[in-house]
Amino acid sequence: MYLGIDLGGTNIAVGLVNENGKIIKKESTPTIKSRAYTEIVKDMARLCKNVVRKSGKTMDDVKAIGMGSPGTVDNSRGMVVYANNLKMDHSPIAAELQKYINKPINIENDANAAAYGEYIAIGRKMKGFVFMTLGTGVGGGIIIDGQIYRGFNGAGAEIGHTSIVFNGKKCTCGKLGCLEMYASVTALKAQTRAIMNANPNSIMHDWKKKKGIISGRTAFECAKAGDKAAIEARDNYIRYVAEGISNMVNIFQPEMFVIGGGISREGDELLLPIREFVYANDYNKHMPKTEIRIARLFNDAGIVGAALAAKNME
Amino acid sequence: MYLGIDLGGTNIAVGLVNENGKIIKKESTPTIKSRAYTEIVKDMARLCKNVVRKSGKTMDDVKAIGMGSPGTVDNSRGMVVYANNLKMDHSPIAAELQKYINKPINIENDANAAAYGEYIAIGRKMKGFVFMTLGTGVGGGIIIDGQIYRGFNGAGAEIGHTSIVFNGKKCTCGKLGCLEMYASVTALKAQTRAIMNANPNSIMHDWKKKKGIISGRTAFECAKAGDKAAIEARDNYIRYVAEGISNMVNIFQPEMFVIGGGISREGDELLLPIREFVYANDYNKHMPKTEIRIARLFNDAGIVGAALAAKNME
Repeated sequence: MYLGIDLGGTNIAVGLVNENGKIIKKESTPTIKSRAYTEIVKDMARLCKNVVRKSGKTMDDVKAIGMGSPGTVDNSRGMVVYANNLKMDHSPIAAELQKYINKPINIENDANAAAYGEYIAIGRKMKGFVFMTLGTGVGGGIIIDGQIYRGFNGAGAEIGHTSIVFNGKKCTCGKLGCLEMYASVTALKAQTRAIMNANPNSIMHDWKKKKGIISGRTAFECAKAGDKAAIEARDNYIRYVAEGISNMVNIFQPEMFVIGGGISREGDELLLPIREFVYANDYNKHMPKTEIRIARLFNDAGIVGAALAAKNME
Repeated sequence: MYLGIDLGGTNIAVGLVNENGKIIKKESTPTIKSRAYTEIVKDMARLCKNVVRKSGKTMDDVKAIGMGSPGTVDNSRGMVVYANNLKMDHSPIAAELQKYINKPINIENDANAAAYGEYIAIGRKMKGFVFMTLGTGVGGGIIIDGQIYRGFNGAGAEIGHTSIVFNGKKCTCGKLGCLEMYASVTALKAQTRAIMNANPNSIMHDWKKKKGIISGRTAFECAKAGDKAAIEARDNYIRYVAEGISNMVNIFQPEMFVIGGGISREGDELLLPIREFVYANDYNKHMPKTEIRIARLFNDAGIVGAALAAKNME
């Protein structure tokens, strides 16, 4: 068995995961991101011990621990090099956690870990597999021949930071026109708000009054009711997402492309127009096509992927 | 030793290549692309026999033959599936060539073969290596852990067919805004022409009168003489190329990125501003950076890469 830790800006989630990627027991606690990394690691260790004990197991049953972290990680040195939401700067997380639990520890970028979890959930070997998560930002993970692709420095697979609009909106990373500025849920909310402002009669205004907020669901739900402005907001957004996926398909021709993150729960409303666009814009016109799917594990992908990447550790 | 065949729309070039990637002897002949594939293969066989004989070797010295072809190839079946410039449609090139020379034959996409040749020329193992060739189109090749990355269907690494301009110019592949429409030499010539038309006093007009044509060198050469319009054309073009490379670096974080194709002979005029832009727009701000270089082998990359990919055949 393996322990998987999904470190997020809001919560630390820990799960005990079996060899097949099934979560036996999981628990979480608030990250309280202003804390020193040593305090955060103390909580990780506590949760690890909890899920093992509550599963009726002992630490002897655990072969290794895997963690997924936001930001830049140094897999070979067990460090979180930089994470803009956490107080981590070349923080030796693996060594710190080993003070509490003496097991081999593997640290991955969180999107890479989630990608690996989704890959494992498919249950078969694939030559190429690409995962894109649509959340506050746009994250990515690339699995080649069953291995997480990290780049030579561990900072690879940032597919949200490829530009799709030349000289477009300035991204938080400093680059202009990044996919993240158009295809994240943050972007969808801004796009929805702009179209609402231009369409005072849209039913999205009633939706907002009822829910108190504009969310990633506003446009999707009101579009289902036939609201023209909502349909425009939804379809523009989907076009941006599809553009990013189309680019990745022309580069990787992966056997499978999986879309995750909260917005992927919209299912076929999101998936079907993406498939149509990506296949219509595929450079490959003569060979089998990439399968495009919605994620299976959603929030559990990080725990499962981190745990099984530790199993797969070099 | 290995035979490497570089099949192009204009010429067929064949070389005898040693284990270290050095060309012992090479020869070429016009492709005459209107011919049936069987005629083209006959010429390939003739050139193969010529270079072996003229090197004082026999076919017993040749372990395998590698070919690079434009278009979509099926590596596992030894076929050129489709090449829009050649009369090839699921053409069993390997089997046809084996009628003349009975050796194992490996077929790669031409840009993949050139990428592999440039990778071998560096002479050391790298975790990730990306090659982009700026010619009539924009081709790409990706080498991961020393292996050519082809995608699950053999059609991958088409980095020229990722969009950089949202809803931009329509590419020959059908997609809008492809890098190829902005960063190929074809695009540079069109950009140069447009800026010349807007600047009747530019010295580029004199250059054109002298040479009889507008080429990929027009803007670069006149920019060196200080012509403002030429500087604008050159710098706009370089910005497009850099945008494409920046995107690939954020995805792959390769150990090395190599720029090939005729225009890469401009050297530092091209390379230095690209490096500056790519590093300024790198999502990775805390780990070592991708090395960005100009190609070494130029026209020989296809022969060397095809030959040594045959050595590396699965």
